Amino acid sequence: MNIFYQPHLHEGRFFLDPEESRHCVKVLRKKTGEEIRLTDGKGSFYRAVITTADPAKCTFTVLAVEEELPRSYSIHIAISPTKNSDRIEWFVEKCVEIGIDRITLIECENTERAYLRKDRLDKVAISAMKQSIKARLPVIDEITKFADIVSGGQEAKFIAYVDAENPVTLKSAAPPNSAYLVLIGPEGDFTPVELQTALQHGFKKVSLGTSRLRTETAGMVACHTLQLINAG
Amino acid sequence: MNIFYQPHLHEGRFFLDPEESRHCVKVLRKKTGEEIRLTDGKGSFYRAVITTADPAKCTFTVLAVEEELPRSYSIHIAISPTKNSDRIEWFVEKCVEIGIDRITLIECENTERAYLRKDRLDKVAISAMKQSIKARLPVIDEITKFADIVSGGQEAKFIAYVDAENPVTLKSAAPPNSAYLVLIGPEGDFTPVELQTALQHGFKKVSLGTSRLRTETAGMVACHTLQLINAG
Repeated sequence: MNIFYQPHLHEGRFFLDPEESRHCVKVLRKKTGEEIRLTDGKGSFYRAVITTADPAKCTFTVLAVEEELPRSYSIHIAISPTKNSDRIEWFVEKCVEIGIDRITLIECENTERAYLRKDRLDKVAISAMKQSIKARLPVIDEITKFADIVSGGQEAKFIAYVDAENPVTLKSAAPPNSAYLVLIGPEGDFTPVELQTALQHGFKKVSLGTSRLRTETAGMVACHTLQLINAG
Repeated sequence: MNIFYQPHLHEGRFFLDPEESRHCVKVLRKKTGEEIRLTDGKGSFYRAVITTADPAKCTFTVLAVEEELPRSYSIHIAISPTKNSDRIEWFVEKCVEIGIDRITLIECENTERAYLRKDRLDKVAISAMKQSIKARLPVIDEITKFADIVSGGQEAKFIAYVDAENPVTLKSAAPPNSAYLVLIGPEGDFTPVELQTALQHGFKKVSLGTSRLRTETAGMVACHTLQLINAG
């Protein structure tokens, strides 16, 4: 099943953007009169019929709208970008497939790469949302300073930190049906000062298991752990 | 921390293979007399001291051996290779990090790509084992016919299959402390005949949650679900 994305559908934008139009008409060879499925990335699916199968601007008429029910929990992962940008893009793809609400890239003391193309991450997220037939596009924030992410938020807050005296797992510490925020550190981990700052701001220190995980794996494992606590 | 791999250590092979020697002596600039850590991939870690820092054949003497305790469960994932081989390599890397015992690539009716470079997958697994400081290298089998994988095995056996009448999740169906085998289908899923064959051989049909996951994501999610049931 193919699903198309038009974020401005509810504002009356009843056509596909050039790339989606091309995909719909040129690649999938959809014709005028054929039905398509769309999402606005804001919680709704649409059933529509093509009115002009133009590969530059494919227009349609909406037949029906279906709301995706909101979840009883929300997952927000704040993660340091990896040196290799493929790895953070992979993290975004997998978390969107599994189910995530918000991703913030954070600049920590040991972050080696502060810059990242947010446009590229948005594109990965849109593609994964379509692939996994979801109606909500997660928010991806611009790079944020560690100090700013720890000082805000009303969520159930966790910081993944591996040390000898850390027997509490995210699985055991996270209550179901909550809004979660989990901080995932860079390859060189959070500094002791960063850890202290987070603890002072109400973050709980948690382990993600006995394995030493790469940054992007830790982020994905945290997301899936919270998903499993609440569903599936 | 760096860890080196010498699978024949217990047979008295007290030197690193060319690639590992180069990495140890050229890249990490280790000198004669310095200590290194090794694994044989068979459950043991070794502390050793370099006797000749030769970048072509770095020799060492073992100082101490430490056995990694076996787990109370084992995870075996049998998965169809993906069309894009990067994705299956990524699956191997992530499962080794999370913890897996055996991976079998299976050729199903809808498998689009039957060939895969096992040498490449072994390399990915070795690298991930070293990266995550593990002493056991998972077994990776050559491509196996679906009929052969379903007819064997004494494990708690599951087949991931998504359909409308499938409310049983792997999380709820898998007992702790068991040997598990989970079958993950190709992009076009298992055929109804394959599903029937698996059920006849004692496999239980399970869902991996409400999201539609790519093949490699499904495999990784199955592995992490079993890991979470038993630990962390």
